[in-house]
Amino acid sequence: MTAPSLQRWAVRIEYDGRPFVGWQRQITGLSVQQVLEEAASRLASGRVVPSITAGRTDAGVHATGQAAHLDFPGDVRLNDSTVRDALNFHMKPYPVAVLRACPVDTEWSARFSAIRRSYRYRILNRRSRPTLDDGRVWLVKRTLDEAAMARAARLLLGRHDFTSFRASACQARSPLRTLDRLGVVRQGEEIVIEAEARSFLHHQVRNMVGTLKLVGEGLWAPDRVAAALAACDRRAAGPTAPPDGLYLTGVGYDPDPF
Amino acid sequence: MTAPSLQRWAVRIEYDGRPFVGWQRQITGLSVQQVLEEAASRLASGRVVPSITAGRTDAGVHATGQAAHLDFPGDVRLNDSTVRDALNFHMKPYPVAVLRACPVDTEWSARFSAIRRSYRYRILNRRSRPTLDDGRVWLVKRTLDEAAMARAARLLLGRHDFTSFRASACQARSPLRTLDRLGVVRQGEEIVIEAEARSFLHHQVRNMVGTLKLVGEGLWAPDRVAAALAACDRRAAGPTAPPDGLYLTGVGYDPDPF
Repeated sequence: MTAPSLQRWAVRIEYDGRPFVGWQRQITGLSVQQVLEEAASRLASGRVVPSITAGRTDAGVHATGQAAHLDFPGDVRLNDSTVRDALNFHMKPYPVAVLRACPVDTEWSARFSAIRRSYRYRILNRRSRPTLDDGRVWLVKRTLDEAAMARAARLLLGRHDFTSFRASACQARSPLRTLDRLGVVRQGEEIVIEAEARSFLHHQVRNMVGTLKLVGEGLWAPDRVAAALAACDRRAAGPTAPPDGLYLTGVGYDPDPF
Repeated sequence: MTAPSLQRWAVRIEYDGRPFVGWQRQITGLSVQQVLEEAASRLASGRVVPSITAGRTDAGVHATGQAAHLDFPGDVRLNDSTVRDALNFHMKPYPVAVLRACPVDTEWSARFSAIRRSYRYRILNRRSRPTLDDGRVWLVKRTLDEAAMARAARLLLGRHDFTSFRASACQARSPLRTLDRLGVVRQGEEIVIEAEARSFLHHQVRNMVGTLKLVGEGLWAPDRVAAALAACDRRAAGPTAPPDGLYLTGVGYDPDPF
Protein backbone atom coordinates (compact mmCIF):
# COMPACT_ATOMS: atom_id res chain seq x y z
CA MET A 1 0.00 0.00 0.00
CA THR A 2 1.25 3.51 -0.75
CA ALA A 3 0.86 6.38 1.70
CA PRO A 4 -1.93 8.84 0.88
CA SER A 5 -0.67 11.70 -1.25
CA LEU A 6 -1.53 14.32 1.35
CA GLN A 7 -2.93 14.75 4.83
CA ARG A 8 -5.17 17.75 5.43
CA TRP A 9 -5.22 19.31 8.89
CA ALA A 10 -7.63 21.94 10.15
CA VAL A 11 -6.19 24.51 12.57
CA ARG A 12 -7.83 27.11 14.81
CA ILE A 13 -5.51 30.12 15.10
CA GLU A 14 -5.08 33.21 17.26
CA TYR A 15 -2.85 36.16 16.35
CA ASP A 16 -1.99 39.75 17.10
CA GLY A 17 -2.23 41.47 13.71
CA ARG A 18 0.07 44.39 14.54
CA PRO A 19 3.40 43.09 13.20
CA PHE A 20 1.96 41.55 10.02
CA VAL A 21 1.09 42.74 6.51
CA GLY A 22 -2.08 40.68 6.93
CA TRP A 23 -2.97 37.03 6.52
CA GLN A 24 -1.83 36.64 2.95
CA ARG A 25 1.77 36.30 1.77
CA GLN A 26 3.11 39.52 0.27
CA ILE A 27 6.56 40.60 -0.83
CA THR A 28 6.23 43.77 1.26
CA GLY A 29 6.61 42.07 4.62
CA LEU A 30 5.84 39.23 6.96
CA SER A 31 2.38 37.63 6.81
CA VAL A 32 0.60 35.27 9.20
CA GLN A 33 0.39 32.75 6.33
CA GLN A 34 4.16 32.74 5.91
CA VAL A 35 4.77 32.21 9.65
CA LEU A 36 2.28 29.32 9.71
CA GLU A 37 3.46 27.63 6.52
CA GLU A 38 7.15 27.91 7.42
CA ALA A 39 6.45 26.30 10.81
CA ALA A 40 4.45 23.53 9.07
CA SER A 41 7.31 23.02 6.63
CA ARG A 42 9.60 22.28 9.60
CA LEU A 43 7.36 19.29 10.45
CA ALA A 44 7.68 18.04 6.87
CA SER A 45 11.49 18.01 6.52
CA GLY A 46 11.43 21.34 4.74
CA ARG A 47 8.88 20.43 2.09
CA VAL A 48 6.23 22.99 1.16
CA VAL A 49 3.00 22.79 3.20
CA PRO A 50 0.40 25.08 1.60
CA SER A 51 -2.46 26.58 3.57
CA ILE A 52 -5.95 27.89 2.80
CA THR A 53 -7.72 30.20 5.25
CA ALA A 54 -11.33 31.05 6.03
CA GLY A 55 -10.66 34.78 6.17
CA ARG A 56 -7.82 36.75 4.60
CA THR A 57 -7.57 39.42 7.26
CA ASP A 58 -5.94 42.76 6.38
CA ALA A 59 -2.79 44.26 7.88
CA GLY A 60 -3.26 45.08 11.56
CA VAL A 61 -6.44 42.99 11.95
CA HIS A 62 -6.38 40.47 14.79
CA ALA A 63 -7.86 37.00 15.20
CA THR A 64 -8.98 34.98 18.18
CA GLY A 65 -10.74 32.30 16.12
CA GLN A 66 -9.24 32.19 12.62
CA ALA A 67 -9.44 28.84 10.79
CA ALA A 68 -7.21 27.40 8.09
CA HIS A 69 -6.18 24.07 6.68
CA LEU A 70 -2.70 22.75 5.93
CA ASP A 71 -1.83 20.05 3.40
CA PHE A 72 1.06 17.94 4.71
CA PRO A 73 2.79 15.29 2.62
CA GLY A 74 1.23 11.85 3.23
CA ASP A 75 4.31 10.27 4.78
CA VAL A 76 4.68 12.68 7.74
CA ARG A 77 3.60 11.17 11.08
CA LEU A 78 1.32 13.61 12.87
CA ASN A 79 -1.13 13.61 15.76
CA ASP A 80 -3.40 16.30 17.20
CA SER A 81 -1.23 17.56 20.04
CA THR A 82 2.10 17.26 18.20
CA VAL A 83 0.74 19.35 15.32
CA ARG A 84 -0.52 22.04 17.70
CA ASP A 85 2.52 22.07 20.00
CA ALA A 86 5.13 21.72 17.25
CA LEU A 87 3.58 24.50 15.15
CA ASN A 88 3.48 26.72 18.24
CA PHE A 89 7.11 25.92 18.99
CA HIS A 90 8.25 26.79 15.47
CA MET A 91 6.13 29.97 15.26
CA LYS A 92 7.97 31.56 18.21
CA PRO A 93 8.59 34.41 18.75
CA TYR A 94 5.82 35.64 16.45
CA PRO A 95 2.44 36.40 18.08
CA VAL A 96 0.65 33.55 16.30
CA ALA A 97 -0.62 30.42 18.07
CA VAL A 98 -2.50 27.31 17.02
CA LEU A 99 -5.28 26.69 19.53
CA ARG A 100 -6.51 23.38 18.08
CA ALA A 101 -5.49 21.05 15.26
CA CYS A 102 -7.36 18.06 13.85
CA PRO A 103 -7.14 15.87 10.75
CA VAL A 104 -9.87 16.44 8.18
CA ASP A 105 -10.95 14.85 4.94
CA THR A 106 -9.49 16.42 1.79
CA GLU A 107 -13.07 17.28 0.78
CA TRP A 108 -13.15 19.69 3.71
CA SER A 109 -11.95 23.24 3.08
CA ALA A 110 -11.34 25.92 5.72
CA ARG A 111 -12.60 28.41 3.16
CA PHE A 112 -15.38 26.71 1.22
CA SER A 113 -16.83 24.62 4.05
CA ALA A 114 -17.26 27.70 6.27
CA ILE A 115 -20.90 28.62 6.86
CA ARG A 116 -20.40 31.56 9.25
CA ARG A 117 -17.81 34.23 10.02
CA SER A 118 -17.89 36.26 13.25
CA TYR A 119 -16.09 39.53 13.84
CA ARG A 120 -15.79 41.84 16.82
CA TYR A 121 -14.90 45.52 16.58
CA ARG A 122 -13.72 47.38 19.68
CA ILE A 123 -14.00 51.18 19.96
CA LEU A 124 -12.34 52.79 22.98
CA ASN A 125 -14.58 55.75 23.68
CA ARG A 126 -12.70 58.13 25.96
CA ARG A 127 -10.40 61.13 25.85
CA SER A 128 -7.13 59.45 26.83
CA ARG A 129 -5.19 57.34 24.32
CA PRO A 130 -5.01 53.58 24.94
CA THR A 131 -1.96 52.09 26.70
CA LEU A 132 -2.59 48.38 27.35
CA ASP A 133 -4.74 48.23 24.20
CA ASP A 134 -2.65 50.38 21.88
CA GLY A 135 -3.12 49.04 18.32
CA ARG A 136 -5.99 46.85 19.48
CA VAL A 137 -8.87 49.34 19.70
CA TRP A 138 -10.05 52.38 17.74
CA LEU A 139 -9.85 55.47 19.93
CA VAL A 140 -12.89 57.72 19.42
CA LYS A 141 -12.79 60.71 21.76
CA ARG A 142 -16.28 62.14 21.27
CA THR A 143 -18.89 60.40 23.43
CA LEU A 144 -20.83 57.92 21.30
CA ASP A 145 -24.57 57.25 21.58
CA GLU A 146 -24.57 53.46 21.49
CA ALA A 147 -28.38 53.25 21.42
CA ALA A 148 -28.51 55.28 18.18
CA MET A 149 -25.72 53.12 16.75
CA ALA A 150 -27.66 49.96 17.64
CA ARG A 151 -30.81 51.32 15.95
CA ALA A 152 -28.85 52.15 12.80
CA ALA A 153 -27.14 48.73 12.85
CA ARG A 154 -30.51 46.97 12.74
CA LEU A 155 -31.24 48.66 9.39
CA LEU A 156 -28.36 46.71 7.84
CA LEU A 157 -29.56 43.25 8.91
CA GLY A 158 -30.75 40.79 6.27
CA ARG A 159 -29.96 40.18 2.61
CA HIS A 160 -28.85 43.30 0.72
CA ASP A 161 -26.60 44.61 -2.00
CA PHE A 162 -23.75 45.92 0.20
CA THR A 163 -21.95 47.86 -2.56
CA SER A 164 -21.95 50.98 -0.35
CA PHE A 165 -19.88 49.13 2.27
CA ARG A 166 -17.53 47.32 -0.11
CA ALA A 167 -13.87 48.18 -0.78
CA SER A 168 -13.14 49.14 -4.36
CA ALA A 169 -10.51 46.37 -4.40
CA CYS A 170 -13.11 43.72 -3.41
CA GLN A 171 -12.89 40.69 -5.68
CA ALA A 172 -16.19 39.00 -4.78
CA ARG A 173 -18.39 38.32 -7.80
CA SER A 174 -21.60 39.48 -6.11
CA PRO A 175 -22.17 42.40 -3.72
CA LEU A 176 -25.13 40.52 -2.19
CA ARG A 177 -24.60 39.36 1.39
CA THR A 178 -26.86 38.30 4.25
CA LEU A 179 -25.95 40.05 7.49
CA ASP A 180 -27.26 37.90 10.36
CA ARG A 181 -26.05 39.97 13.30
CA LEU A 182 -24.76 43.46 13.96
CA GLY A 183 -24.95 44.12 17.68
CA VAL A 184 -23.74 47.29 19.39
CA VAL A 185 -23.23 47.38 23.16
CA ARG A 186 -21.36 49.57 25.59
CA GLN A 187 -19.02 47.85 28.04
CA GLY A 188 -17.66 50.59 30.28
CA GLU A 189 -15.40 52.81 28.17
CA GLU A 190 -15.75 50.52 25.15
CA ILE A 191 -18.32 50.21 22.40
CA VAL A 192 -18.28 46.62 21.15
CA ILE A 193 -19.77 45.73 17.76
CA GLU A 194 -20.39 42.07 16.91
CA ALA A 195 -21.03 41.11 13.26
CA GLU A 196 -21.98 37.72 11.89
CA ALA A 197 -22.65 36.49 8.33
CA ARG A 198 -21.98 33.51 6.09
CA SER A 199 -19.37 35.73 4.44
CA PHE A 200 -18.44 39.41 4.20
CA LEU A 201 -17.26 41.67 1.40
CA HIS A 202 -13.76 43.18 1.61
CA HIS A 203 -13.71 45.92 4.31
CA GLN A 204 -17.45 45.42 4.91
CA VAL A 205 -17.19 45.28 8.70
CA ARG A 206 -14.81 48.24 8.89
CA ASN A 207 -16.99 50.29 6.53
CA MET A 208 -20.11 49.51 8.55
CA VAL A 209 -18.30 50.48 11.76
CA GLY A 210 -16.98 53.72 10.23
CA THR A 211 -20.56 54.58 9.28
CA LEU A 212 -22.06 53.64 12.67
CA LYS A 213 -19.49 55.88 14.34
CA LEU A 214 -20.97 58.88 12.46
CA VAL A 215 -24.36 57.94 13.91
CA GLY A 216 -22.86 57.56 17.40
CA GLU A 217 -21.32 61.02 17.18
CA GLY A 218 -24.69 62.50 16.20
CA LEU A 219 -23.42 63.59 12.76
CA TRP A 220 -25.82 61.16 11.04
CA ALA A 221 -29.40 60.26 12.00
CA PRO A 222 -29.78 56.46 12.20
CA ASP A 223 -32.08 56.46 9.13
CA ARG A 224 -29.34 57.82 6.94
CA VAL A 225 -27.65 54.40 7.15
CA ALA A 226 -30.64 52.84 5.33
CA ALA A 227 -30.33 55.51 2.63
CA ALA A 228 -26.59 54.85 2.32
CA LEU A 229 -27.28 51.13 1.90
CA ALA A 230 -29.97 51.77 -0.74
CA ALA A 231 -27.65 54.08 -2.71
CA CYS A 232 -25.39 51.13 -3.70
CA ASP A 233 -22.53 53.60 -3.92
CA ARG A 234 -19.42 53.46 -1.71
CA ARG A 235 -19.40 57.28 -1.49
CA ALA A 236 -22.80 57.24 0.22
CA ALA A 237 -21.49 55.47 3.35
CA GLY A 238 -18.97 56.53 5.98
CA PRO A 239 -15.17 56.11 6.04
CA THR A 240 -13.36 52.84 6.71
CA ALA A 241 -12.64 52.25 10.40
CA PRO A 242 -8.97 51.45 11.14
CA PRO A 243 -7.87 47.79 11.37
CA ASP A 244 -6.74 48.14 15.01
CA GLY A 245 -10.14 47.39 16.57
CA LEU A 246 -11.09 44.43 14.37
CA TYR A 247 -10.94 40.78 15.48
CA LEU A 248 -11.96 37.67 13.54
CA THR A 249 -13.48 35.82 16.48
CA GLY A 250 -14.80 32.67 14.86
CA VAL A 251 -15.51 30.62 11.77
CA GLY A 252 -18.45 28.21 11.82
CA TYR A 253 -18.62 24.77 10.18
CA ASP A 254 -21.31 22.10 10.15
CA PRO A 255 -20.14 19.68 11.36
CA ASP A 256 -17.45 21.51 13.32
CA PRO A 257 -14.15 19.63 12.93
CA PHE A 258 -12.55 21.25 16.00
CA MET B 1 -0.93 88.44 47.53
CA THR B 2 1.62 85.76 46.82
CA ALA B 3 0.81 82.65 44.78
CA PRO B 4 0.37 79.47 46.84
CA SER B 5 3.65 77.62 47.16
CA LEU B 6 2.35 74.50 45.43
CA GLN B 7 -0.70 73.04 43.73
CA ARG B 8 -1.43 69.37 44.32
CA TRP B 9 -3.16 67.41 41.55
CA ALA B 10 -4.59 63.90 41.83
CA VAL B 11 -4.27 61.75 38.70
CA ARG B 12 -5.82 58.42 37.74
CA ILE B 13 -3.36 56.50 35.55
CA GLU B 14 -3.34 53.50 33.22
CA TYR B 15 -0.18 51.76 31.99
CA ASP B 16 1.23 48.72 30.33
CA GLY B 17 3.93 47.53 32.74
CA ARG B 18 5.99 45.59 30.20
CA PRO B 19 8.58 48.25 29.21
CA PHE B 20 9.13 49.60 32.72
CA VAL B 21 11.32 48.71 35.70
CA GLY B 22 8.19 49.33 37.80
CA TRP B 23 6.51 52.41 39.22
CA GLN B 24 9.46 53.73 41.17
CA ARG B 25 12.48 55.56 39.71
CA GLN B 26 15.54 53.33 39.47
CA ILE B 27 18.93 53.78 37.87
CA THR B 28 18.52 50.46 36.05
CA GLY B 29 15.91 51.66 33.56
CA LEU B 30 12.81 53.63 32.77
CA SER B 31 10.04 53.81 35.39
CA VAL B 32 6.43 54.95 35.15
CA GLN B 33 7.22 57.61 37.77
CA GLN B 34 9.98 59.09 35.62
CA VAL B 35 7.72 59.24 32.54
CA LEU B 36 4.95 60.95 34.55
CA GLU B 37 7.22 63.41 36.39
CA GLU B 38 9.12 64.39 33.26
CA ALA B 39 5.84 65.09 31.46
CA ALA B 40 4.64 67.14 34.44
CA SER B 41 7.92 69.05 34.45
CA ARG B 42 7.18 70.15 30.87
CA LEU B 43 4.05 71.90 32.15
CA ALA B 44 6.14 73.70 34.77
CA SER B 45 8.85 75.19 32.54
CA GLY B 46 11.23 72.40 33.40
CA ARG B 47 10.95 72.69 37.16
CA VAL B 48 10.79 69.49 39.22
CA VAL B 49 7.27 68.16 39.85
CA PRO B 50 7.47 65.34 42.41
CA SER B 51 4.85 62.60 42.61
CA ILE B 52 3.58 60.21 45.26
CA THR B 53 1.68 57.07 44.29
CA ALA B 54 -0.87 54.83 45.95
CA GLY B 55 0.87 51.64 44.83
CA ARG B 56 4.50 51.15 43.85
CA THR B 57 3.91 48.38 41.32
CA ASP B 58 6.81 46.07 40.41
CA ALA B 59 8.46 45.65 37.01
CA GLY B 60 6.03 44.18 34.48
CA VAL B 61 2.91 44.84 36.59
CA HIS B 62 0.13 46.75 34.81
CA ALA B 63 -2.41 49.31 36.01
CA THR B 64 -5.87 50.28 34.84
CA GLY B 65 -6.65 52.40 37.91
CA GLN B 66 -3.42 53.58 39.53
CA ALA B 67 -3.60 56.84 41.51
CA ALA B 68 -0.91 59.38 42.24
CA HIS B 69 -0.56 63.03 43.12
CA LEU B 70 1.71 65.64 41.58
CA ASP B 71 2.94 68.82 43.28
CA PHE B 72 3.17 71.63 40.74
CA PRO B 73 4.69 75.03 41.53
CA GLY B 74 1.97 77.46 42.61
CA ASP B 75 2.40 79.83 39.68
CA VAL B 76 1.60 77.36 36.89
CA ARG B 77 -1.86 77.84 35.33
CA LEU B 78 -3.64 74.49 35.18
CA ASN B 79 -7.13 73.13 34.64
CA ASP B 80 -8.52 69.59 34.67
CA SER B 81 -8.52 68.85 30.97
CA THR B 82 -5.25 70.64 30.17
CA VAL B 83 -3.45 68.67 32.88
CA ARG B 84 -4.84 65.36 31.56
CA ASP B 85 -4.34 66.12 27.86
CA ALA B 86 -0.95 67.84 28.23
CA LEU B 87 0.45 65.04 30.38
CA ASN B 88 -0.79 62.49 27.84
CA PHE B 89 0.78 64.47 25.03
CA HIS B 90 4.16 64.64 26.75
CA MET B 91 4.10 60.96 27.83
CA LYS B 92 3.97 59.77 24.21
CA PRO B 93 5.09 57.30 22.97
CA TYR B 94 5.23 55.47 26.32
CA PRO B 95 2.23 53.30 27.21
CA VAL B 96 1.16 55.49 30.13
CA ALA B 97 -2.00 57.61 30.11
CA VAL B 98 -3.72 59.91 32.58
CA LEU B 99 -7.44 59.05 32.64
CA ARG B 100 -8.51 61.85 35.00
CA ALA B 101 -6.88 64.77 36.77
CA CYS B 102 -8.29 67.01 39.47
CA PRO B 103 -6.92 69.55 41.95
CA VAL B 104 -6.82 68.41 45.56
CA ASP B 105 -5.98 69.94 48.90
CA THR B 106 -2.39 69.51 50.03
CA GLU B 107 -3.73 67.55 53.00
CA TRP B 108 -4.81 64.88 50.53
CA SER B 109 -2.28 62.17 49.68
CA ALA B 110 -2.60 59.55 46.93
CA ARG B 111 -0.81 57.18 49.28
CA PHE B 112 -2.00 58.00 52.79
CA SER B 113 -5.60 58.94 51.96
CA ALA B 114 -6.17 55.62 50.14
CA ILE B 115 -8.59 53.34 51.96
CA ARG B 116 -8.74 50.48 49.43
CA ARG B 117 -6.55 48.89 46.76
CA SER B 118 -7.97 46.51 44.14
CA TYR B 119 -5.94 44.10 42.04
CA ARG B 120 -6.84 41.66 39.29
CA TYR B 121 -4.71 38.66 38.34
CA ARG B 122 -5.28 36.93 34.99
CA ILE B 123 -4.23 33.32 34.42
CA LEU B 124 -4.52 32.01 30.85
CA ASN B 125 -5.34 28.34 31.37
CA ARG B 126 -4.72 26.55 28.10
CA ARG B 127 -2.01 24.66 26.21
CA SER B 128 -1.14 27.30 23.60
CA ARG B 129 0.96 30.32 24.49
CA PRO B 130 -0.72 33.75 24.47
CA THR B 131 -0.43 35.99 21.39
CA LEU B 132 -2.65 39.04 21.87
CA ASP B 133 -2.06 38.84 25.63
CA ASP B 134 1.64 38.02 25.67
CA GLY B 135 3.18 39.60 28.78
CA ARG B 136 -0.28 40.34 30.15
CA VAL B 137 -1.39 36.96 31.50
CA TRP B 138 0.27 34.03 33.29
CA LEU B 139 0.12 30.95 31.08
CA VAL B 140 -0.70 27.82 33.11
CA LYS B 141 -1.05 24.77 30.87
CA ARG B 142 -2.46 22.24 33.31
CA THR B 143 -6.25 22.52 33.70
CA LEU B 144 -7.04 24.38 36.93
CA ASP B 145 -9.92 23.55 39.27
CA GLU B 146 -11.30 27.02 39.90
CA ALA B 147 -13.83 25.80 42.49
CA ALA B 148 -11.02 24.39 44.66
CA MET B 149 -9.07 27.63 44.20
CA ALA B 150 -12.11 29.66 45.29
CA ARG B 151 -12.55 27.49 48.40
CA ALA B 152 -8.88 27.95 49.30
CA ALA B 153 -9.09 31.70 48.66
CA ARG B 154 -11.88 32.08 51.23
CA LEU B 155 -9.52 30.74 53.92
CA LEU B 156 -7.35 33.84 53.48
CA LEU B 157 -10.13 36.39 53.98
CA GLY B 158 -10.11 38.61 57.06
CA ARG B 159 -7.41 40.01 59.34
CA HIS B 160 -4.26 37.85 59.56
CA ASP B 161 -0.51 37.89 59.89
CA PHE B 162 0.38 37.42 56.20
CA THR B 163 4.11 36.73 56.78
CA SER B 164 3.83 33.56 54.68
CA PHE B 165 2.78 35.64 51.67
CA ARG B 166 5.19 38.53 52.17
CA ALA B 167 8.33 39.21 50.13
CA SER B 168 11.55 39.14 52.16
CA ALA B 169 12.23 42.68 50.87
CA CYS B 170 8.89 43.97 52.23
CA GLN B 171 9.39 47.17 54.22
CA ALA B 172 6.00 47.34 55.96
CA ARG B 173 6.28 47.61 59.74
CA SER B 174 3.52 45.08 60.41
CA PRO B 175 2.66 41.82 58.60
CA LEU B 176 -0.97 42.20 59.67
CA ARG B 177 -3.40 42.95 56.86
CA THR B 178 -7.16 42.63 56.37
CA LEU B 179 -8.04 40.88 53.12
CA ASP B 180 -11.57 41.94 52.17
CA ARG B 181 -11.95 40.06 48.91
CA LEU B 182 -10.19 37.25 47.06
CA GLY B 183 -12.54 36.02 44.33
CA VAL B 184 -11.68 33.31 41.82
CA VAL B 185 -13.79 32.84 38.68
CA ARG B 186 -13.33 31.17 35.32
CA GLN B 187 -14.06 33.26 32.22
CA GLY B 188 -13.62 30.91 29.28
CA GLU B 189 -9.92 30.06 29.02
CA GLU B 190 -9.03 32.47 31.82
CA ILE B 191 -9.03 32.22 35.61
CA VAL B 192 -9.52 35.71 37.02
CA ILE B 193 -8.60 36.46 40.64
CA GLU B 194 -9.81 39.71 42.21
CA ALA B 195 -8.21 40.91 45.46
CA GLU B 196 -9.19 43.85 47.62
CA ALA B 197 -7.77 45.25 50.86
CA ARG B 198 -6.95 48.57 52.50
CA SER B 199 -3.33 47.77 51.69
CA PHE B 200 -1.21 44.78 50.72
CA LEU B 201 2.26 43.58 51.68
CA HIS B 202 4.98 43.46 49.02
CA HIS B 203 4.27 40.58 46.59
CA GLN B 204 1.24 39.54 48.67
CA VAL B 205 -1.13 39.20 45.71
CA ARG B 206 1.42 37.35 43.56
CA ASN B 207 2.31 35.03 46.43
CA MET B 208 -1.36 34.26 47.12
CA VAL B 209 -1.92 33.58 43.39
CA GLY B 210 1.15 31.33 43.18
CA THR B 211 -0.23 29.35 46.11
CA LEU B 212 -3.78 29.13 44.75
CA LYS B 213 -2.35 27.80 41.48
CA LEU B 214 -0.96 24.77 43.40
CA VAL B 215 -4.48 24.15 44.70
CA GLY B 216 -5.95 24.53 41.20
CA GLU B 217 -3.49 21.97 39.83
CA GLY B 218 -4.50 19.50 42.55
CA LEU B 219 -1.01 19.52 44.10
CA TRP B 220 -2.35 21.09 47.30
CA ALA B 221 -5.65 20.42 49.07
CA PRO B 222 -7.47 23.73 49.74
CA ASP B 223 -6.97 23.34 53.52
CA ARG B 224 -3.22 23.45 53.14
CA VAL B 225 -3.55 27.16 52.39
CA ALA B 226 -4.89 27.74 55.92
CA ALA B 227 -1.92 25.82 57.32
CA ALA B 228 0.48 27.88 55.18
CA LEU B 229 -1.08 31.10 56.52
CA ALA B 230 -0.87 29.89 60.12
CA ALA B 231 2.81 28.95 59.73
CA CYS B 232 3.82 32.64 59.40
CA ASP B 233 6.77 31.46 57.32
CA ARG B 234 7.31 32.44 53.68
CA ARG B 235 8.62 28.93 52.93
CA ALA B 236 5.25 27.42 53.90
CA ALA B 237 3.40 29.07 50.99
CA GLY B 238 3.72 28.65 47.22
CA PRO B 239 5.99 30.44 44.76
CA THR B 240 5.52 34.02 43.55
CA ALA B 241 3.34 34.27 40.43
CA PRO B 242 4.94 36.27 37.58
CA PRO B 243 4.15 39.99 37.24
CA ASP B 244 2.62 39.55 33.76
CA GLY B 245 -0.90 38.73 34.93
CA LEU B 246 -1.18 41.42 37.63
CA TYR B 247 -3.18 44.65 37.26
CA LEU B 248 -3.74 47.40 39.81
CA THR B 249 -7.38 48.08 38.92
CA GLY B 250 -8.35 50.72 41.44
CA VAL B 251 -7.56 52.79 44.50
CA GLY B 252 -10.42 53.90 46.73
CA TYR B 253 -10.74 57.21 48.58
CA ASP B 254 -13.47 58.66 50.77
CA PRO B 255 -14.43 61.12 49.45
CA ASP B 256 -13.27 60.14 45.97
CA PRO B 257 -11.56 63.17 44.37
CA PHE B 258 -11.90 61.84 40.81
